[in-house]
Amino acid sequence: MDQERNSRNTGSGGSEVRQNRFEHGLGVLSRIDGESGHRVVESLDDISPELGHQIVAWAFGDMYDRPALPPRDRQLVTLGMLTALGGCEVELDVHVNASLNVGLSPEEIVEALLHAAVYCGIPKSLNATLVAKKVFGERGLLPVAGT
Amino acid sequence: MDQERNSRNTGSGGSEVRQNRFEHGLGVLSRIDGESGHRVVESLDDISPELGHQIVAWAFGDMYDRPALPPRDRQLVTLGMLTALGGCEVELDVHVNASLNVGLSPEEIVEALLHAAVYCGIPKSLNATLVAKKVFGERGLLPVAGT
Amino acid sequence: MDQERNSRNTGSGGSEVRQNRFEHGLGVLSRIDGESGHRVVESLDDISPELGHQIVAWAFGDMYDRPALPPRDRQLVTLGMLTALGGCEVELDVHVNASLNVGLSPEEIVEALLHAAVYCGIPKSLNATLVAKKVFGERGLLPVAGT
Amino acid sequence: MDQERNSRNTGSGGSEVRQNRFEHGLGVLSRIDGESGHRVVESLDDISPELGHQIVAWAFGDMYDRPALPPRDRQLVTLGMLTALGGCEVELDVHVNASLNVGLSPEEIVEALLHAAVYCGIPKSLNATLVAKKVFGERGLLPVAGT
Amino acid sequence: MDQERNSRNTGSGGSEVRQNRFEHGLGVLSRIDGESGHRVVESLDDISPELGHQIVAWAFGDMYDRPALPPRDRQLVTLGMLTALGGCEVELDVHVNASLNVGLSPEEIVEALLHAAVYCGIPKSLNATLVAKKVFGERGLLPVAGT
Amino acid sequence: MDQERNSRNTGSGGSEVRQNRFEHGLGVLSRIDGESGHRVVESLDDISPELGHQIVAWAFGDMYDRPALPPRDRQLVTLGMLTALGGCEVELDVHVNASLNVGLSPEEIVEALLHAAVYCGIPKSLNATLVAKKVFGERGLLPVAGT
Repeated sequence: MDQERNSRNTGSGGSEVRQNRFEHGLGVLSRIDGESGHRVVESLDDISPELGHQIVAWAFGDMYDRPALPPRDRQLVTLGMLTALGGCEVELDVHVNASLNVGLSPEEIVEALLHAAVYCGIPKSLNATLVAKKVFGERGLLPVAGT
Repeated sequence: MDQERNSRNTGSGGSEVRQNRFEHGLGVLSRIDGESGHRVVESLDDISPELGHQIVAWAFGDMYDRPALPPRDRQLVTLGMLTALGGCEVELDVHVNASLNVGLSPEEIVEALLHAAVYCGIPKSLNATLVAKKVFGERGLLPVAGT
Repeated sequence: MDQERNSRNTGSGGSEVRQNRFEHGLGVLSRIDGESGHRVVESLDDISPELGHQIVAWAFGDMYDRPALPPRDRQLVTLGMLTALGGCEVELDVHVNASLNVGLSPEEIVEALLHAAVYCGIPKSLNATLVAKKVFGERGLLPVAGT
Repeated sequence: MDQERNSRNTGSGGSEVRQNRFEHGLGVLSRIDGESGHRVVESLDDISPELGHQIVAWAFGDMYDRPALPPRDRQLVTLGMLTALGGCEVELDVHVNASLNVGLSPEEIVEALLHAAVYCGIPKSLNATLVAKKVFGERGLLPVAGT
Repeated sequence: MDQERNSRNTGSGGSEVRQNRFEHGLGVLSRIDGESGHRVVESLDDISPELGHQIVAWAFGDMYDRPALPPRDRQLVTLGMLTALGGCEVELDVHVNASLNVGLSPEEIVEALLHAAVYCGIPKSLNATLVAKKVFGERGLLPVAGT
Repeated sequence: MDQERNSRNTGSGGSEVRQNRFEHGLGVLSRIDGESGHRVVESLDDISPELGHQIVAWAFGDMYDRPALPPRDRQLVTLGMLTALGGCEVELDVHVNASLNVGLSPEEIVEALLHAAVYCGIPKSLNATLVAKKVFGERGLLPVAGT
C-alpha cells in the first residue's frame, strides 16, 4: 500500500521527506498494532489514502513514537480515550490488540475498562469491555482471571 | 452467576457484606431489567466479573434502589442520558425494556425520545427511537398510537 | 422581543402563522422557564433572532407543549440529557430552575443528578450537581435535606 | 406516508397549516436526501410518526430550506457535525448521499472527513470515512482520486 | 464532613458498613487527590452529600483502590478519559494534581495530553493542556522541559 | 516562539525539515487565524511547545493547507465540529474569527450555527451562537441582520 501513497506530494515537504516519514511510521505501526492496524490503513486505499498516510506518518511516526511516554503508557491513555469517546468499537478492537502487543496483560486491560465506569459511566465501560471480550476470545485469552 | 462473584473479597468490606450487597442488587435488577439485564451481567462472567458485580451491587443495589426517586422517574432520566450519550444501543435496548417493566407506556417512551430531538438533535433522537422500535416489535407493541 | 421576530416570514408559513406559533410558544416558555428562559431568548436578539424564534415557537410551542408527557416528566428527561451532553451549564441553570417551576422538589432534582453518576460517570454528575447548588443557593433552597 | 401524519393536529397550528408545512418539507427532503431520506422517515411510521413529521416539516421545511446558506454549505456543516457527534452512521449514510446530491464531489467529501481528523481525532474521522466508502461503493464512485 | 454522611443508612448495608466503606475511601482519596479532592467532596455537603459519599466510598474506596492497576496507571487512563469527555475542567484540575501526587512527572502528563490530540483532536488536547498549565503554575512547575 | 520549537528534533525528520514544516504552517496559521491563533500557540510555550508545533506544522501546514477544500469550506466543517463537540468555546472563538477572516459573512456563520440546532440540539447551537455574539461584538459586527 505504501508505494502509491508515497509518491504524492504535499505541503509537508518534498516527496522524499514524505516517503521517509511514511516508512518510519509504518515500522511503528507494525510494532504496535500489527495486522489489525495494517488492515485499517489498507481499507482506506480506495477512499482516502491521505487519511491512511496521516495515520501512519503522523499518528504513529510523529506522535506515538515520541520517547516521552512508552507504548504501554500510551495504550492506557488510549483505552481511556476510546472508551470515553464512545462509538469507537473498530478502533478499540485495534487498540485492545495493540495493548496486548505492547505488554499490558488481559487483567490490566480489563481493570482499565472497569476503572472507566467511574469516569464515563457504566454503559461506556460495558461497551468497551465487550470489545475486549471479542478480542480476547479471538486470541484464546478467555476467561480472564478475576480478582 | 452470583456464587463465584460473591466469594471474591474487595475493599468494600468482608465477603459476607459483598455477598449481601450483591444479592440485594440482584433483586432490584430482576424487578427492573428482567431477563435482558441478567443477560448483560452474565455476558461479563468470563471477561470482567467485577464489572458485573458493580452493575448489580452498586448500580442497582446502592443507587437505583434509593427511595428518593421511583423507578419510573429514574427511567425517564436514563432514557434521556442514553440518548444523549450516543453509541449506547445495547444499553438503550435494556432500558427501553426496563421502562416498559416499571410502568412507562410505549407512548410515553416514544414521546421522551421525541423530546430528545430538541436537546440532543434529530440524529440521536432517531437512533434511540429505532432502538425502541426494535424492542416494541419484539414485545408485540407496534404500531404505537400516535398523537 | 416578539414584535420584530414576528414580522419575519419564512417557509414555515405566512407571517400570521409564524406570529401565532411564536405567541403560543412564548406562553409555554413563560410557564416553564420563567425569567431565565426569557433572558436566554433575549440575549439572541442582536445575533440570531431566528434561533430565539425556534426556541420559542418550535422547542416550546410545538415540542414541549405536546400533551403526551407532562412538564415534570419532560424535565426529568431534560436533566438527564443536559448532564450527559456536558458543557451545557448555561442550559442546566435554566432547566434546574424550570424543574423547580414545574414541581420537581430539590431532593428529586439532586437524586436525578446522582442517578446520572451511574450512566454518565462521576464527573458529569458532579458538574450538574454544582449547577444545581448555584441555582438552589439563588433561590434560598440550601441545604437540601439528604437521605 | 404523508396523509396520516397530515391529519394530526398539534399546537403548531391548525391541521391545514400542519399539512402545508409537511408538504413543503417533503419537497425539500426529496431534493436533498432523495430515497435514503424517505426511507428513514418511513421507518418511523409505526413507532414515532411525529418524529417523522418534525424531520420533514421542521428540519427540512423550516430549517434546511432557509436561503441564508445553500444546500452545499449546509452539507459541509452537517458532515462536520455528524462526524464529531459519533455513533451517527445511519445519518452519515443519508448525508453522504445528500452531499453528493447537492453537488459536493467525492473528493470534497473525503477531504472534509480528513479535515475532521484535526478537530475530532483520527478515530471519528476514520469512522466517517468508512461510511463514505460504503456509500461511494453503492454509487459506483470508488476509487476516489487522491491528491 | 464524614460524620453526618456516615450516619445515613442505605441499601448498601448497615450504617456501620457504610461508615467503614466511607472511612476506607477517605484514606484512598487523601493519598491520591489530597486537598483538591477533599474540597470537591466538601462542596457537596449542602447539596448532595450522597454524591460525596459515593465519590469517597465507591469511586475511591471500592474502585480506585483495587490492586489490579496501580495509581500511576489509573491516572493515565483517567487523564485520557477526562480529556476525551470534554467540559470536565474542574475534574481535570483535581486529576492533574492527583497525577503529580502518584508519581507521574510533568513531562509525562504533558505527553499524555499531547497524545490525546491523535485520538480526541486538537481542541480537546488543547483544553486539557491549558488546565495542566494552570495546575503546574500553582505548583511552581513551569516551564515544563520540552523534548 | 518559533526558534526554540524549531531546534527540536523528532521522528518527523531532521531539524531542517521540522523547521521548514513549522514555518510553512506559521504562514497558513497567520492567514487563517490571525492574532487569536498566534495567542493560542504562544500560550503553549511553557507547557507543551510540541503541541504548539503540531498545531502549526501539522494542523495548519499539512492538513488545513491542502488544496482539495478552500478555507471557507473548511471553516464551515470546523464550525459544525466545534459546535457538536461541545466545551470548545476557546477554539470556537478562534474559529469564528477565522471564519470571518476567510470570507464567511456574519449572516452565514450565524446560519451555520442555527443549522446546528437540527443535528446537535438547541443547547449546543445556543452555546456556539453566544460565542459568535462575543466575537462579533469585539469586531463591531453587531447586530447581525436577521432574515
